[in-house]
Amino acid sequence: MNNPITDTLHIDELIKMALREDISNEDITTNAVMREYKKGTVDLICKQDGVICGLHVFARTFEILDKDTEIQLFYEDGDFVKRGAHIAKVTGDIRVLLSGERTALNYLQRMSGIATYTRQVADLLKGSKTKLLDTRKTTPNMRIFEKYAVKVGGGVNHRYNLSDGILLKDNHIGAAGSVTKAVQMAREYAPFVRKIEVEVENLDMCREALDAGADIIMLDNMAVEDMKTAVNMIGGRALTECSGNVTKENISNIIDTGVDYVSSGALTHSAPIMDLSLKNLHAID
Amino acid sequence: MNNPITDTLHIDELIKMALREDISNEDITTNAVMREYKKGTVDLICKQDGVICGLHVFARTFEILDKDTEIQLFYEDGDFVKRGAHIAKVTGDIRVLLSGERTALNYLQRMSGIATYTRQVADLLKGSKTKLLDTRKTTPNMRIFEKYAVKVGGGVNHRYNLSDGILLKDNHIGAAGSVTKAVQMAREYAPFVRKIEVEVENLDMCREALDAGADIIMLDNMAVEDMKTAVNMIGGRALTECSGNVTKENISNIIDTGVDYVSSGALTHSAPIMDLSLKNLHAID
Amino acid sequence: MNNPITDTLHIDELIKMALREDISNEDITTNAVMREYKKGTVDLICKQDGVICGLHVFARTFEILDKDTEIQLFYEDGDFVKRGAHIAKVTGDIRVLLSGERTALNYLQRMSGIATYTRQVADLLKGSKTKLLDTRKTTPNMRIFEKYAVKVGGGVNHRYNLSDGILLKDNHIGAAGSVTKAVQMAREYAPFVRKIEVEVENLDMCREALDAGADIIMLDNMAVEDMKTAVNMIGGRALTECSGNVTKENISNIIDTGVDYVSSGALTHSAPIMDLSLKNLHAID
Amino acid sequence: MNNPITDTLHIDELIKMALREDISNEDITTNAVMREYKKGTVDLICKQDGVICGLHVFARTFEILDKDTEIQLFYEDGDFVKRGAHIAKVTGDIRVLLSGERTALNYLQRMSGIATYTRQVADLLKGSKTKLLDTRKTTPNMRIFEKYAVKVGGGVNHRYNLSDGILLKDNHIGAAGSVTKAVQMAREYAPFVRKIEVEVENLDMCREALDAGADIIMLDNMAVEDMKTAVNMIGGRALTECSGNVTKENISNIIDTGVDYVSSGALTHSAPIMDLSLKNLHAID
Amino acid sequence: MNNPITDTLHIDELIKMALREDISNEDITTNAVMREYKKGTVDLICKQDGVICGLHVFARTFEILDKDTEIQLFYEDGDFVKRGAHIAKVTGDIRVLLSGERTALNYLQRMSGIATYTRQVADLLKGSKTKLLDTRKTTPNMRIFEKYAVKVGGGVNHRYNLSDGILLKDNHIGAAGSVTKAVQMAREYAPFVRKIEVEVENLDMCREALDAGADIIMLDNMAVEDMKTAVNMIGGRALTECSGNVTKENISNIIDTGVDYVSSGALTHSAPIMDLSLKNLHAID
Amino acid sequence: MNNPITDTLHIDELIKMALREDISNEDITTNAVMREYKKGTVDLICKQDGVICGLHVFARTFEILDKDTEIQLFYEDGDFVKRGAHIAKVTGDIRVLLSGERTALNYLQRMSGIATYTRQVADLLKGSKTKLLDTRKTTPNMRIFEKYAVKVGGGVNHRYNLSDGILLKDNHIGAAGSVTKAVQMAREYAPFVRKIEVEVENLDMCREALDAGADIIMLDNMAVEDMKTAVNMIGGRALTECSGNVTKENISNIIDTGVDYVSSGALTHSAPIMDLSLKNLHAID
Repeated sequence: MNNPITDTLHIDELIKMALREDISNEDITTNAVMREYKKGTVDLICKQDGVICGLHVFARTFEILDKDTEIQLFYEDGDFVKRGAHIAKVTGDIRVLLSGERTALNYLQRMSGIATYTRQVADLLKGSKTKLLDTRKTTPNMRIFEKYAVKVGGGVNHRYNLSDGILLKDNHIGAAGSVTKAVQMAREYAPFVRKIEVEVENLDMCREALDAGADIIMLDNMAVEDMKTAVNMIGGRALTECSGNVTKENISNIIDTGVDYVSSGALTHSAPIMDLSLKNLHAID
Repeated sequence: MNNPITDTLHIDELIKMALREDISNEDITTNAVMREYKKGTVDLICKQDGVICGLHVFARTFEILDKDTEIQLFYEDGDFVKRGAHIAKVTGDIRVLLSGERTALNYLQRMSGIATYTRQVADLLKGSKTKLLDTRKTTPNMRIFEKYAVKVGGGVNHRYNLSDGILLKDNHIGAAGSVTKAVQMAREYAPFVRKIEVEVENLDMCREALDAGADIIMLDNMAVEDMKTAVNMIGGRALTECSGNVTKENISNIIDTGVDYVSSGALTHSAPIMDLSLKNLHAID
Repeated sequence: MNNPITDTLHIDELIKMALREDISNEDITTNAVMREYKKGTVDLICKQDGVICGLHVFARTFEILDKDTEIQLFYEDGDFVKRGAHIAKVTGDIRVLLSGERTALNYLQRMSGIATYTRQVADLLKGSKTKLLDTRKTTPNMRIFEKYAVKVGGGVNHRYNLSDGILLKDNHIGAAGSVTKAVQMAREYAPFVRKIEVEVENLDMCREALDAGADIIMLDNMAVEDMKTAVNMIGGRALTECSGNVTKENISNIIDTGVDYVSSGALTHSAPIMDLSLKNLHAID
Repeated sequence: MNNPITDTLHIDELIKMALREDISNEDITTNAVMREYKKGTVDLICKQDGVICGLHVFARTFEILDKDTEIQLFYEDGDFVKRGAHIAKVTGDIRVLLSGERTALNYLQRMSGIATYTRQVADLLKGSKTKLLDTRKTTPNMRIFEKYAVKVGGGVNHRYNLSDGILLKDNHIGAAGSVTKAVQMAREYAPFVRKIEVEVENLDMCREALDAGADIIMLDNMAVEDMKTAVNMIGGRALTECSGNVTKENISNIIDTGVDYVSSGALTHSAPIMDLSLKNLHAID
Repeated sequence: MNNPITDTLHIDELIKMALREDISNEDITTNAVMREYKKGTVDLICKQDGVICGLHVFARTFEILDKDTEIQLFYEDGDFVKRGAHIAKVTGDIRVLLSGERTALNYLQRMSGIATYTRQVADLLKGSKTKLLDTRKTTPNMRIFEKYAVKVGGGVNHRYNLSDGILLKDNHIGAAGSVTKAVQMAREYAPFVRKIEVEVENLDMCREALDAGADIIMLDNMAVEDMKTAVNMIGGRALTECSGNVTKENISNIIDTGVDYVSSGALTHSAPIMDLSLKNLHAID
Repeated sequence: MNNPITDTLHIDELIKMALREDISNEDITTNAVMREYKKGTVDLICKQDGVICGLHVFARTFEILDKDTEIQLFYEDGDFVKRGAHIAKVTGDIRVLLSGERTALNYLQRMSGIATYTRQVADLLKGSKTKLLDTRKTTPNMRIFEKYAVKVGGGVNHRYNLSDGILLKDNHIGAAGSVTKAVQMAREYAPFVRKIEVEVENLDMCREALDAGADIIMLDNMAVEDMKTAVNMIGGRALTECSGNVTKENISNIIDTGVDYVSSGALTHSAPIMDLSLKNLHAID
């Protein structure tokens, strides 16, 4: 689903950095025993059920090391795969298969882990109008991969970073003087294509944000009853987001409030990886 | 514990990249409401028990944005901290406190999560001679932080990457022709300061590796009884490492084998973060 | 008005590149005649009336070459200055003053040129509700400076780039199948904080965009009468932007349509520079 | 006219930076409506008479995004083109055509604008021996493109930067003590392949520069009569350059002085762009 | 012998930097006289007997400038070549052949010089068990090339850098308090795959290092008799290295001590280049 | 003699790269035994007579690692120093002294080696008008240091690279058609501040170059008698350079020809290093 332009401009550089992190001058073991090109093939096997994600990153890793590496994909990002599934086949210089393996898997496992976890949480929201959002609580220098994995898992992306979305929190409001003033200053300062989101902690702030013309109102750590009242008060004049300590246990209560979005940092900061491995490496000719 | 040389040569660049990932041109919200320098202070508070790790990375993040930011640390890396503990105080330009917050916490939470998880597993090994090892299953472009966190948590680092350690796996052995030949080729090819590690799957391979002069023998996915036999056979002539599916449940059996090291990928690929936050931001003068 | 965080993360690197472009190994002339540090001072003088803009970029250029350079500013960005005005004084190593002069002025003159030109066009809109927008027609690798200069000149920024704003043009609409479908696909795909803008060429498209829920409707190259009809039809349910061949001559007609925004590429692609120079360099002690 | 070596070593990096400036993570609009590769074609049309320049930069922009993009050029750099002329055809992944359009045009329009403006001024010098020079008053990080455009427009390049040419101005002369000493210090210090140019403000300085062996003498802001006297005095023993406030009105007087070169900063700092656009995008198969 | 992965991740970047050092904007001479592509061929000729080394670096230099350049190699790294030998033929754009020549030769000549010198010293050790080691006394930003050349010349690599090998010198021992303590601290701190080397200056230190479990003992500037005693005392329980002022004259004495390795900084810091040149450039069609 | 601008823009980056080459993640030995800041001092001692060169590079290396390192210099670049001389004292964090030592010395030793060798050759030219030139036969990514060292040693720099000087060799002349045509094409194409140098192999070519107006004529591998004739023929109308296999033995003959310059590649490609070391490291308080 990611496209070649983003790969060329952004992803390739990050993968190269990761490869250099793992190969600071050479793969000493591989080079000791394989001094010449030898063609081989290896299978990508799933060792755990889940949502596969990051196959193009996996593929690019090998292609960066040798553009002639061939990658056959038998699934695509977003597919639910079962333990034992044969996901892909990589064919090329055996040294490339061995030296690129760990970096390729480190990306794929983490992205698939996030997609899998996101799917599980998103499934709890099925049947409701409420959608699942990610946050900026991503691993440093992994955001482009992790936000994509959330989308593949069925989540919706919140702003990408501090430059492309406005979110007025208590400290910003304090600096501005009031919710009203903060919204007004943001509208004057920011590019006019930005929506303005305000984080509110109680019904009074909520009403002020609504009156000030906020496009999105984030209900932060509010009680379920208060959230219901807030959503009713807003009545569709702004989008609503619920944030803070969303758990599997309390998520059905949140849905009942009629909030448009629920955001969860855990999608990107605490999803365990999905286990995948390369198997059956053998020379071919 | 990390030192200023590594910060200068490696860590600063990675933090800067992460800051640019989060601020691709400006922090539009903060700039909208705070157009001038204003001095303020904020507290770093722990929201969960655990082992704190990454305080110098947290500090550098703010210092990179403004070298005059002052960071007071009340704990140091490796300390076990309790929920509610006041870990640090950051004082400086409020815009810096706001714009740097997320990146600083993203590092600190992940590093502390890994240190905490490592400490838990390492505690299970207490009283035995067996030590806990990490792997190369780290997040791309996060290895320098994650390997450090393992050490702070009480683990021991395995090789840093493919360039600084030799680990002959089945595919390398296959390419060389035999364990004996692989060890010999590695000894000829690699810098003479490298130890040579061989991954073995059964007792025959283990014996051959030992005879070939391997410095370290990794017992990969072997049954506990076989591991015991292997450790006895080796008799201290090589270091021993146990790898593969180590769990809290079976770890006591592994200790009984007398193996020198146990390695675990989960330390770096699946530890959940430790929850920390910045609180009580207020202007001072 | 720009802040130190953006300087540190983005602007310094661009200035350094520009300095390296002008000094690929050394300033051969200055080094030939001045082999030692000598303190001096020089005045920044305005040679043309206009809006000064980019003073912090001017200052950073010298500070990058030598952090001990002192820059006194007698005006600030956005001030209207008269021919002959003494804008700033730079004091430090004379070699720094000489070697940095051209790069510092190249930035300042261009940014001031854009701010001056923008102010002239914005003044034509005074008294109306219509605001002046920039475009993405900026000089490559100068956008952060040029968009800032537009703001200083009294314009409003449109989206920063292709990643932070949605603008559905005819080709996007064609690919989607219809305006309605395009808006729907954008809403599904994009981060939920993005406003959705649709470019329309006639009243039918305008109505469809409105019905589809577009946040902003760009009236592209439409006749003044049609624009009036469109603005009435929209009736405040979306923001309106007028684009295409806006000139000083026809701008009053455009104002009459009641459109919210007028965008102009010329602000950044065709503004002549404002003439400024460094004068009265002399040694001090 | 530019060659592939310069493209590979210098221009590609600058274009990539410009593309990243415009696509900080993805082209959100295009990706929303076109999720798959689709082949298409688009025409580059001239909307204004002028000298076309930068076609290889235009082409490289698309090729960088996708090396399989095909660009057919129907004109070459330096050709005078008429409004409506079909300059080129670009064929490839439609997403590449859309995402690369703005950056490709931003380069091409500016370079063509400079070439067009240079040609106009150069034409005023036709029939005389006087040639038109550019200066270092270029847009930061655009020099390689802008100096090339001057040459395409019929101008001659002055030094590229501070490292590859010696130009002794009043401050350098002041630091050295005298014109004679400055020339001598430059000759001792600089690589012996450098010509030495001296900026003079009156006839006495001119004579001293000549006696000191200057290779080039720049007559700075001198009256036309004085310039004539100076050119006669020099009598071919040094090259002569006239600098400062050259206008279309006074240029014929300057020619009469017999000066070898006239330099003009406006060529690169104040030329308006030439209007060009991509039209008729459509899918092909 | 070097492999494509290392080329892609590390060597290409260094070559590109070197090319940019030599071509800061364009090859002005070549471009002046050759404005179009013209195919040609040139021969690499040896002007001095020696060991050729760096042929893939030589080839990559031209391929980076134009990937379609063809390089035929008639020898391979490590071959002893005679004056006049025809080593390779390079075919492609003549501008590429001319512009890349100097950089390609600068690498090849230096690497061949080091390989040649190393071979001469290594030959003096023939028949003994003693092997020749390099050091970290390499040219800045040339280590990857120079260490490889030592290996091609018949030497063995010592540690690559400060990160991948432990060498406890007098100052480290002083800081730790004693040899014993230093070895123990190193064993605790470092990744467990590192061998620990201790530099000793006399027999007492040697014994302490041995008892502390050092893996390698470096005998630094010790008298030949003392070295013999040390080697006997160690008796194979640690590897031994002799360092300091090894000359052709005294090397046979060193061999007699039975030391395992002799290290020499001169291999990389003082080997003269091997003379090679490109001849017979001519156009082909 | 180098100045802070060049350091900031160019040299610091190269030193940092060299430091990263030597410390790919941390100095494992130093960090094992010194976990805290401790202040110390160390002396730079000369172990060989010669011309010291590169002291500011030596100093910058430590300052980059820790800006608070103090460096006292007791000599300056270009001084002739005797074995045993105390050149400098470095005071600061002992870890910085240890981790930076090798890189600092690798630069200083090589630069001093080149300066020393250049001085020796330059001394042979004393009393004559002939000056000593360097070439582009420098170590890749070391040119800025090596050309500077030649100047410190008493040599004169030839062109810096392919972009800043024109040297028409046989292949360029062949491509142009004749010497005359080549000179003319160069004069038309190149920035007008460039001198034009022509390499000639015989008297006919020399005469043609002279008539074509070459600024510099390089007599390449010509017999001494022919050189004399050529120099006479030229009679001061162009500068003359003698190139090719200049040795200490034949240099006096070359002087007799009256040639202006003699160039030698050996200055930068084959000078052995000058031995220097850091001694007497001890803690202070």
